[in-house]
Amino acid sequence: MKPIKFNIEHKLLGTLGRAGTITTPNGTIQTPAFVTVGTKATVKALTTEQVRDLGAQVVLANTYHLYLEPGDEIVRDAGGFAKFMNWSGPTMTDSGGFQVFSLGAAFGTKVGKLAKVGEVIVGEEIDKGDQAGKLAKIDEDGVTFKSYRDGSEHRFTPERSMEIQHNLGADMIFAFDECTSPAAPYEYQREAMDRTHRWAKRSLDAHKANKEASAKQGLLGVVQGGRHRELREESARVLGAMDFDGYGIGGSFDKDDMYAAVGWVNAILPEDKPRHLLGIGEPVDLFGAVENGCDLFDCVAPTRTGRNGTLHTNDGKINLLNARFVRDFTPVDAECDCYTCKNYTRAYLAHLFRSDEMLAATLASIHNLRFLVALVEKMRESIIDGSFNTLKTSFIARYYKK
Amino acid sequence: MKPIKFNIEHKLLGTLGRAGTITTPNGTIQTPAFVTVGTKATVKALTTEQVRDLGAQVVLANTYHLYLEPGDEIVRDAGGFAKFMNWSGPTMTDSGGFQVFSLGAAFGTKVGKLAKVGEVIVGEEIDKGDQAGKLAKIDEDGVTFKSYRDGSEHRFTPERSMEIQHNLGADMIFAFDECTSPAAPYEYQREAMDRTHRWAKRSLDAHKANKEASAKQGLLGVVQGGRHRELREESARVLGAMDFDGYGIGGSFDKDDMYAAVGWVNAILPEDKPRHLLGIGEPVDLFGAVENGCDLFDCVAPTRTGRNGTLHTNDGKINLLNARFVRDFTPVDAECDCYTCKNYTRAYLAHLFRSDEMLAATLASIHNLRFLVALVEKMRESIIDGSFNTLKTSFIARYYKK
Repeated sequence: MKPIKFNIEHKLLGTLGRAGTITTPNGTIQTPAFVTVGTKATVKALTTEQVRDLGAQVVLANTYHLYLEPGDEIVRDAGGFAKFMNWSGPTMTDSGGFQVFSLGAAFGTKVGKLAKVGEVIVGEEIDKGDQAGKLAKIDEDGVTFKSYRDGSEHRFTPERSMEIQHNLGADMIFAFDECTSPAAPYEYQREAMDRTHRWAKRSLDAHKANKEASAKQGLLGVVQGGRHRELREESARVLGAMDFDGYGIGGSFDKDDMYAAVGWVNAILPEDKPRHLLGIGEPVDLFGAVENGCDLFDCVAPTRTGRNGTLHTNDGKINLLNARFVRDFTPVDAECDCYTCKNYTRAYLAHLFRSDEMLAATLASIHNLRFLVALVEKMRESIIDGSFNTLKTSFIARYYKK
Repeated sequence: MKPIKFNIEHKLLGTLGRAGTITTPNGTIQTPAFVTVGTKATVKALTTEQVRDLGAQVVLANTYHLYLEPGDEIVRDAGGFAKFMNWSGPTMTDSGGFQVFSLGAAFGTKVGKLAKVGEVIVGEEIDKGDQAGKLAKIDEDGVTFKSYRDGSEHRFTPERSMEIQHNLGADMIFAFDECTSPAAPYEYQREAMDRTHRWAKRSLDAHKANKEASAKQGLLGVVQGGRHRELREESARVLGAMDFDGYGIGGSFDKDDMYAAVGWVNAILPEDKPRHLLGIGEPVDLFGAVENGCDLFDCVAPTRTGRNGTLHTNDGKINLLNARFVRDFTPVDAECDCYTCKNYTRAYLAHLFRSDEMLAATLASIHNLRFLVALVEKMRESIIDGSFNTLKTSFIARYYKK
């Protein structure tokens, strides 16, 4: 009996898009769905009630961070990271592989996953990594790295990533992979992809060997291959033939090619398994990913940019530190149904940001997460009722003013 | 028609203690009650729902801080600080007079209100003041001071304090006063007290002159007089004869004399008006203040120390950064009914503190505030059922292990 089931309910005519339901041991996820990131077993600045109330269906924590602090054995003894953080719904953990990338070959090159070459669009991990220098070394067996916290040396292998993720106890976990830079040459992309495929097989074997864990945790393989169609399609074929419960699609892409690249991959991956595009949070990218067949997405951007005062509205992003908001007694977005918009004004949030009050981060994070969760909810509804293209056109015209 | 009514329901036999109800235009307060501090129109790290859910009945904001940021006229235009911060219950603002003290004569002397000489037990304002130097100058008419934020010069007088507090719009506001250092000589204490009495009269006149404000905001006079019984009793007589809606009792005391000094004052103040002891948050002090006739108390300590990892339990304070809590999967206090204790473990909070996660501040503040709010609720019940002394003896024996 598989721990993860996926049922497709509607397809978006003429595209790869679909609406479905993922069933996990801890509840269901209506897809497409925006996954909330709780890096260190906390969605930054929010209680789990606030996370639930904004409509989040699933929380993804980071294996690398929880391994270092408080340690995966403490999380195991607490009953897994969901219980540790008081979250009662579905959960995911990533593989730790992104840290291989951010602390390793790409460190200091100012490129991140899903970036135009030379433009950084990455998670918070890299900010921390600044202290560490090039501290990760990849070999066939795994990766050796130094902690961003204290410089101590650690080693991840596919088997170790599985062991840690078994201890963390999420419903859906990821095979250990290497996330390359879009700037890396073709030869390196191929070498890294082939290694990721061998690591995927070892991850799957290690996962199945732990019968207790594999009975209640689903394993997702991670498609790599950089910007190259040939490699992406090969990765989708090789991994698609393995017995995974779903798939992650890892960076790196050239951002302009992303929708096409996701489409190449999803045309090959088994249709009846969920697909998670890792690290996507810009509205236009969510539309592109959904119509190209992705079901799940996660990103730290809504909370991270929210903490800096940048908030989504249907008319585009605004920064609340701008002087024009000091006396603006309207909600952040009058059309938004979030707690922040129902109860507080732009002027109040502007005051909180100018005063360095922690509540600013809480209210901004609630709004930005709700905005993206609700946007993907609307995409789901529009797939079901056939109005996806209308939604996409009208949203993008208004949000991006084009 | 007075905006503030106070009804005494029970008296604690053989003491000055009483249980009652304060009625304000925005709701009632069952007394004695611990007042939650929302310095800048935010109880730090908490939404107003969280403040309400922990049982807080009333929020006190600081006039000095809101005057500087965002400015009292913006708060007025927002509908007052309660509406600005989305709080629907009773509210208070202080007079700004404590900042006269903390930025003025006492600056750098390492004494605060309610301190043993040489020991600092003060609010956060003084921490900020460190940047400013001795920046307040008192004259008969008022006080000139420089902003801790940008060094700009400002002036408070009794009339200006009233005007600002009218703009902030709290249900209960305070007459402008000077809070002296307990280390100040007798002659200065008398001089400052006499001036505070003249300022009290001017505050009262300015308040009554604004008929719209005085119809919906009650004004509390602030008793001063330092450590001297003669001055304290004189201050209580002089102010007690004025037409205030209640009284604040301001620092400074020698901490050892506090209970006695509060008793001297409350034996003289009109019995039928509420009394607020400013800046008290240590459990033993709350017992002492209640049995000596105080009805309200406020303090930043529960949230400030909470943010540093120090939490109240019935067995005394604990600091969650201590290594022994890393694997402690029990609640902060198993007897506590707060959101934090019902849903999270010491190990999880220890992880959040060690990871510098903002949720640590939120969960610790909820717990510490609930602990004090609930403790004062129990005092109220024990006044009503006659068990106050039993509660006091058993609580103190366990909390302070003596």
